[in-house]
Amino acid sequence: MTPDSDPSLADLFALLRIPSISTDPAHAPDVARAATWLAGKLRALGFEADILATPRHPAVLAHYHAAPDLPTVLVYGHYDVQPADPVELWRGDPFEPVLEDGKIRARGASDDKGQVFAHIVGAEQLLRETGTLPVNLTFLIEGEEEIGSPNLAALIRDHRDSLQADVVLISDGAMVAPGLPTLTYGLKGLCYLELEVETAAMDLHSGAFGGGVPNAVHALARMIATLHDEEGRVAVPGFYDAVRDLSEAERAAFAAVPFDEADMRRETGVSATPGEAGYTLLERLWARPTLDVNGIGGGFQGAGAKTVIPAKARAKLSCRLVPDQTPEDIAEKLRAHLIRVAPAGARVAVQGLHGALPALTALDSPAVQLAAAALERAYGKPAVFARTGGTIPVVSTFQRELGTDVVLVGFGLETDRIHSPNETFDLAHYRAGVAASRALLGAFGSLPR
Amino acid sequence: MTPDSDPSLADLFALLRIPSISTDPAHAPDVARAATWLAGKLRALGFEADILATPRHPAVLAHYHAAPDLPTVLVYGHYDVQPADPVELWRGDPFEPVLEDGKIRARGASDDKGQVFAHIVGAEQLLRETGTLPVNLTFLIEGEEEIGSPNLAALIRDHRDSLQADVVLISDGAMVAPGLPTLTYGLKGLCYLELEVETAAMDLHSGAFGGGVPNAVHALARMIATLHDEEGRVAVPGFYDAVRDLSEAERAAFAAVPFDEADMRRETGVSATPGEAGYTLLERLWARPTLDVNGIGGGFQGAGAKTVIPAKARAKLSCRLVPDQTPEDIAEKLRAHLIRVAPAGARVAVQGLHGALPALTALDSPAVQLAAAALERAYGKPAVFARTGGTIPVVSTFQRELGTDVVLVGFGLETDRIHSPNETFDLAHYRAGVAASRALLGAFGSLPR
Repeated sequence: MTPDSDPSLADLFALLRIPSISTDPAHAPDVARAATWLAGKLRALGFEADILATPRHPAVLAHYHAAPDLPTVLVYGHYDVQPADPVELWRGDPFEPVLEDGKIRARGASDDKGQVFAHIVGAEQLLRETGTLPVNLTFLIEGEEEIGSPNLAALIRDHRDSLQADVVLISDGAMVAPGLPTLTYGLKGLCYLELEVETAAMDLHSGAFGGGVPNAVHALARMIATLHDEEGRVAVPGFYDAVRDLSEAERAAFAAVPFDEADMRRETGVSATPGEAGYTLLERLWARPTLDVNGIGGGFQGAGAKTVIPAKARAKLSCRLVPDQTPEDIAEKLRAHLIRVAPAGARVAVQGLHGALPALTALDSPAVQLAAAALERAYGKPAVFARTGGTIPVVSTFQRELGTDVVLVGFGLETDRIHSPNETFDLAHYRAGVAASRALLGAFGSLPR
Repeated sequence: MTPDSDPSLADLFALLRIPSISTDPAHAPDVARAATWLAGKLRALGFEADILATPRHPAVLAHYHAAPDLPTVLVYGHYDVQPADPVELWRGDPFEPVLEDGKIRARGASDDKGQVFAHIVGAEQLLRETGTLPVNLTFLIEGEEEIGSPNLAALIRDHRDSLQADVVLISDGAMVAPGLPTLTYGLKGLCYLELEVETAAMDLHSGAFGGGVPNAVHALARMIATLHDEEGRVAVPGFYDAVRDLSEAERAAFAAVPFDEADMRRETGVSATPGEAGYTLLERLWARPTLDVNGIGGGFQGAGAKTVIPAKARAKLSCRLVPDQTPEDIAEKLRAHLIRVAPAGARVAVQGLHGALPALTALDSPAVQLAAAALERAYGKPAVFARTGGTIPVVSTFQRELGTDVVLVGFGLETDRIHSPNETFDLAHYRAGVAASRALLGAFGSLPR
């Protein structure tokens, strides 16, 4: 199987070749290029497609008008990607997609270019076969998801009329197991902060000043060590105050999910699965709030030895939130905690980078019920109802701004190494996604108006 | 005052322009170039000069033979320098020396190119004025001091005959106060380690895996937080076992040194001077062993936000040692401690980068007494006898291999920002160093043979 024998794959590879890294200002032209490419692709299929500018990266908004009396489906996705670093750990160029062991390997293969493209190809196939679609179809594909969608809520508000739909369909996640169709009804929110500790005006010689001055790395390490207690709980005062606890029914449903801890250990290379005491691993991953330091730096990091006492140290840290935590409240509690635990001689600056609300979707809506039936037809198995630790900020925005049901159907796997080196998307799962998209669009043709 | 009006300054600036950074393999040709330059300079003064190759960076060995019955002085120094990073904090190119507010600013201006060059110029002036020198004079100027002099001990052993001297004179340090001549009799040793913590095979998505996997940065931060107790003592078991405590006489002498903590705070920008409980600031700086993390890195450190759980984190850490600690023993104790405190799921690797023994010199030797008298003549003030937190590994090597007294006379200041951005060397102190060198060579002419 080579890309040449499947024209849709050649198209997907062309999109994957564009390094649309939204967090890096140097890649802004690539982000714009990816938007232009997608609009062109959708226009070629008969969509009206616009590129909507924002203060940073544009979004693509495209409509296919099948018939006024048909329901409207809004497919949301994103074409921006995470940075590829550490690039040296990739087996090849992150932006030169290849097929390897039945998997597409490239940054964005699964998150989210590959998944949103499965919906485009689903529509393309229906159009080629029937000349039209069973629903009116809108694509909203943004370029800022990986930086927290700073301009998307305003864009949705500004284009509320044009975005009206009977259901929002999002594929930016994972099945709970290969080939097991998964409808996700809960997402975590996010609160991302940057922390800087400063102890001196400059790095100082450890011979001249060792034993007499504060060390920014020591201060930061001690502060980080206060963030969790000995039993894995987040030790920031008030962190759990707003958390809606899991119901017994939910805990029972989680316990029934075919989740294999040994598989997860093998795929990730971890030798332990530490976390909050009193909860199962799946409960922690899907439904409990977490706090992780995402990066740290300070002092001399080059090759060899340099005998300095670092004057500055920085960390990036983020919390995954669950209902009813809010990023604003958690940011404030973290900031207050960090300032309180800073050692003598350490000046602390905390800066909020971005946040997103957590979301839960109603399970008894017609959209969810029709989607579950369509997935069972496409995959030949009943759908699992899941939650996830991932964050898709737009879900709560759609619910709030459009009042529309949101259905999340992940085509990828948790082991796709999204955000990590050697991201992949299984070719069979890409093709199942195309088939599922066709089944979902067909089913949504019966949505009550 | 411009370099043009003082030919010795023009020469020194030429040497400072060579970025002889010994720790960085990319600068190896520059290190070699600095050695060639120095050998050329010394030959032009009438020295026999050789460039001695080592497995890494060469040393310059030069002899001036005045008369067989005169005493021999061996001046040791180093022409390699620390890295200049963070380069963006310099007010100009670190390797384009300038005179600014009466100070020479360049990497290496004080540590140690400027100080060793003061001795070369002292000899140059005596040769010009008298046609000879009052002693036989040997220069040994190495290129590996900033990486721990890995090949110097072997080189000294191999050239023991050629290096025989009646006194070793080293200027690679500081006066305790501007213009106050300082004879240093104690130096700290060094034990430098690199630590890596690994918790997973790759960085992991914090949404997919947050709450279920170990975080390498958390693990490393917790390990670093165990290195000191709440009262500033190093908490590594056995760390203080071999420490020779300060005598009451020494503590009284330290208390009499004109050391101004407010000055130190102003120069360094620290707002606190934390350290080991039970000792004065000067006792901690000069005579107590210390432990500092010199650098830390892990996870995402670029611009913006990346929601990963770091799989690896690294730290460089080093101890300054006092008699009778040894780098081997302290490295082993640190390694054992770090492995013991590593959290579940963290794989720890500890690598020794280099070490050096601490040293104490006898105060009642003729060399020290003659040097003190010469310094009083040159500066017009009695010399202070000091210890320092700095490390000059070669001191214990000279004592061991040659059996020769070592006299340390610093021409710089603790506030010269050595190892930091914007390193300087006061022009007046450079010139005082030239005068002191002349006085010392004259005095050493009376050394008993």
